[in-house]
Amino acid sequence: MAEPTPNPAPPAETPEVAGEDAGPSKKALKKAEAKAKKEAEKAKRAAERAAATAQANAAAAEDHATGNYGQETHETKLSEDATEISLKTLNDEHLGKKVKLRAFLQNARMQGAKMAFVELRETGNWAIQGVVAANADGSVSRQMVKFIGSVNPESFVVVEATVEKPLEPVKSCRVSNYELHLTKLFVISSAPAMLGMTLSTANKAVTNFSDEEAPAEAPVEGVEKLSISGEVSGPPAASMLTHLDNIVMHKRSYVQQAIADIRVEVKHLFRSYLREHGFKEFEPPCLIAAASEGGANVFRLPYFEKEAFLAQSPQFYKQIEVLAGRKRVFCVGPVFRAENSNTPRHMTEFTGLDLEMEVTDYQEALHMLEGVLLHIFRTIKKTCADEIALVRSVYPSEEFLLPEEGKEVRLTFAEGQKLLREEGPEEFRNVSDFEDMSTPQEKALGALIKKKYNTDFYVLDKFPSDARPFYAKEDPTNPKVTLAYDMFMRGQEILSGGQRIHDPVELEARLRTKGVDPKSPGIREYVDLFRQVGAPPHAGGGIGLDRVVAWYLNLPSVHLAAYYPRTPKRLLP
Amino acid sequence: MAEPTPNPAPPAETPEVAGEDAGPSKKALKKAEAKAKKEAEKAKRAAERAAATAQANAAAAEDHATGNYGQETHETKLSEDATEISLKTLNDEHLGKKVKLRAFLQNARMQGAKMAFVELRETGNWAIQGVVAANADGSVSRQMVKFIGSVNPESFVVVEATVEKPLEPVKSCRVSNYELHLTKLFVISSAPAMLGMTLSTANKAVTNFSDEEAPAEAPVEGVEKLSISGEVSGPPAASMLTHLDNIVMHKRSYVQQAIADIRVEVKHLFRSYLREHGFKEFEPPCLIAAASEGGANVFRLPYFEKEAFLAQSPQFYKQIEVLAGRKRVFCVGPVFRAENSNTPRHMTEFTGLDLEMEVTDYQEALHMLEGVLLHIFRTIKKTCADEIALVRSVYPSEEFLLPEEGKEVRLTFAEGQKLLREEGPEEFRNVSDFEDMSTPQEKALGALIKKKYNTDFYVLDKFPSDARPFYAKEDPTNPKVTLAYDMFMRGQEILSGGQRIHDPVELEARLRTKGVDPKSPGIREYVDLFRQVGAPPHAGGGIGLDRVVAWYLNLPSVHLAAYYPRTPKRLLP
Repeated sequence: MAEPTPNPAPPAETPEVAGEDAGPSKKALKKAEAKAKKEAEKAKRAAERAAATAQANAAAAEDHATGNYGQETHETKLSEDATEISLKTLNDEHLGKKVKLRAFLQNARMQGAKMAFVELRETGNWAIQGVVAANADGSVSRQMVKFIGSVNPESFVVVEATVEKPLEPVKSCRVSNYELHLTKLFVISSAPAMLGMTLSTANKAVTNFSDEEAPAEAPVEGVEKLSISGEVSGPPAASMLTHLDNIVMHKRSYVQQAIADIRVEVKHLFRSYLREHGFKEFEPPCLIAAASEGGANVFRLPYFEKEAFLAQSPQFYKQIEVLAGRKRVFCVGPVFRAENSNTPRHMTEFTGLDLEMEVTDYQEALHMLEGVLLHIFRTIKKTCADEIALVRSVYPSEEFLLPEEGKEVRLTFAEGQKLLREEGPEEFRNVSDFEDMSTPQEKALGALIKKKYNTDFYVLDKFPSDARPFYAKEDPTNPKVTLAYDMFMRGQEILSGGQRIHDPVELEARLRTKGVDPKSPGIREYVDLFRQVGAPPHAGGGIGLDRVVAWYLNLPSVHLAAYYPRTPKRLLP
Repeated sequence: MAEPTPNPAPPAETPEVAGEDAGPSKKALKKAEAKAKKEAEKAKRAAERAAATAQANAAAAEDHATGNYGQETHETKLSEDATEISLKTLNDEHLGKKVKLRAFLQNARMQGAKMAFVELRETGNWAIQGVVAANADGSVSRQMVKFIGSVNPESFVVVEATVEKPLEPVKSCRVSNYELHLTKLFVISSAPAMLGMTLSTANKAVTNFSDEEAPAEAPVEGVEKLSISGEVSGPPAASMLTHLDNIVMHKRSYVQQAIADIRVEVKHLFRSYLREHGFKEFEPPCLIAAASEGGANVFRLPYFEKEAFLAQSPQFYKQIEVLAGRKRVFCVGPVFRAENSNTPRHMTEFTGLDLEMEVTDYQEALHMLEGVLLHIFRTIKKTCADEIALVRSVYPSEEFLLPEEGKEVRLTFAEGQKLLREEGPEEFRNVSDFEDMSTPQEKALGALIKKKYNTDFYVLDKFPSDARPFYAKEDPTNPKVTLAYDMFMRGQEILSGGQRIHDPVELEARLRTKGVDPKSPGIREYVDLFRQVGAPPHAGGGIGLDRVVAWYLNLPSVHLAAYYPRTPKRLLP
């Protein structure tokens, strides 16, 4: 049987005594006097504490509830007839029943000496109020109430209780129509007396995403200003650095759990939709022998007697799969960029959702990519409605607008530039059809398209050759542009794709036009693939998962959408 | 309209002429004579060729089928009323219908001057015979037959045809009850005249898995001798290096496609089963700040001004997820080991299937892991029966035996050692209950268990502390062992798991017992996690996906189960 463990007393103060060589001065005497006074007070307090402890011990002697609370050990037993409940499925049938629940105790407070309230959280923001009151038969003692009322927030506990209707709905908990009348509570694992970050702070909007230490009151550098409400009330908000230093509390916040749940669904829907459309998953390697796309921003590492690189994209590998007759493939995995950019939009490791397919016309791939994204957006709007609302309560954003079915917005790059020239801001009056768009251009075009077509999602097709990598296939009807596209969310690129050159002669010619030696490392092996066999024409695209989640929710940083954001200055936790 | 492109003529011979200073000797005269004779023959042959070409050109002038064959261009048109077919779903309703098919031409041969046969493969070993015969109306000409009969194997083509019943079942193709009577054939992408590795060779069992170049006839070093049939017939088999140098042909082989299909299903079943059991997927990072498990065999890389490591396991991250209240999590992703082992069992990058869950008893996790593996094995036996049979036709193996439901084999480590001592080979008569098993011990135990319980899959539980990492929780009823288990397939470990210490004080004590400084880099951050909050008790395990696939099929090397095997000497392709 477990003894109740009281909270540890604060550590005794050990004032530093400075060495003094001279005899007692006036100042020293005054100091000694103050010291004596202080020590007298200290002794008094110690005596009071001793008396209180004696009283408590006397009371404990009379405690008939010692088997019903305390620290859990492997010998702790709960009633076998108590039903294990989950808060999401709690209902009227449980009323009056004896139940048990394992949960995080997120709050505890005494109400007088005989009653205490707690909030027990199972997952996300699914919490319920628990009440414990000393009773006449002694099965709940005052000591037990006091113990429960002083459990450190964020401890993990197990309770036994009966389910009751509260006198009025409990506003502070998501489960507002039931409460638990506790008959037992054991602390399975105690949180520290002082949390590095409280749950309230963890649930506030992150104030700052800089990698540099900065004052917490620094303004939020949102990707979209719209994301953050200006008002600050209640407990203070914290910077991303504080959140990452307190990773467990960061992740216990309901806003992070909601974001994680949405991310889980996006990945799942990507896979299930593609499976239904005949795609097969495969796994490209992370360790590769040559920098995959040109060599800039690539991580290098010693690899036995050689050097290895971390893959920047699965591009070549998904092409190999199609060349090998796999017809339609996708992969979901990490990709790496050694870019020293310290912005809320950048990470050094992120998750790519990639697909590649044999095509007769590159539009098949474009429609597949557009189709899977629209499927994801339309589905999560319904299946993650709760989670989206939760995120918006912390990071306000406007609803993500989608085109009606059959009215998808697909502009050519040239049409996009024309729109910018004719209806965009002054500075874009002379943009060219043959030069890539800048980020401000993309954003301005996003705003124009939203106004004109009422959608936050759209496709730009047929990019000019100069704006695409060497493997992009030229449009046979107009060699100034390629069969390559980007897709956008709220004016920000989340996908690049297109048809790839599958003829080795055409590929070599294009490489030379681009000023790349077809015999250079990595490139030669790539070109040779198309010489091994006859290659089916193919197209595909790559989606940034972190961006899809972040921009759908209009989060102020992509770091919030990642599980463990990696930035040039941060690899912890 | 495309002109048929004949196969390129072999390059003209350019014999080297050695410089000769002296006047014509007897020998030199003889040589000159021979040379003259040779050149006369050459001229004769040239004249014959010219005559043949002239004849061919004349015939070409009469060719009324030029629109029905040749190299495809973007202007090539197929009949709009032809139905696009897939070989897997071809049926009697297609008989007599005009269809089209895009496929790899895996074989072509002339039958006289007016008829040719081809084999058209869609995916895996799904191939069908095509026949083309010159006809009276000229829509199929002799030239067209000749063109089709000389298409290089492994070119990618599109055909238009009518579906017919063959006179007798076609033995050489999986689709044996139908054949295609070709009316059009265009080469979309031509294979080279000489393949680096033919499909027949690609479909043979790999002869050698050494990273060192070795003669192709070297004996197969199988993990299990049973895997390889001794007999060699037909085209030669090749080493793994040859396969990797010809990656596209390697992957076009039906045996590799079948292995890939099985791997896809294993991953899918792992995810779907866990989702149904309330698990949420998450993504651990690959780039980490400190070596995750002790520092040996870890890849290091320069990371801006610091150093980074590649994760050896997602262990700490899945624990963070459970501490954060995610209850049940899993992840599927790459892990890295910088181990300089050149064996058919080792790779430097492989795919981990990991789960972690909050538990009241560690057996919940053990049962979940056992459950998901049995679910995978039972399901693929049915859904991948074809693929398993295909693999066995190249890599023969005995069926993978499973325990009956409710009769799962779970021995303690001590029971396993006892079995070895009492019924195992002589050399294991004195094995200890408190020392880890060697690989030969594991294999011997696997054989004993198979004999005794008729299963190739089983669990060893309660490993001694010395055999487990510092975070393994001790058995409260017997502190000499841990609540940790391994799972085995055909006597080979594929899973390690157990309950983890969730109390920071217990964790520090164990670290000191193991001789690890709790303040060392990586370790300190880990211990601190458990101080941030109250941590739920949790357990889990990690499965090696490559091994599960390889040992289920009893392949001679785990490299065959990987998409792009990474070994200390090989990073290509």
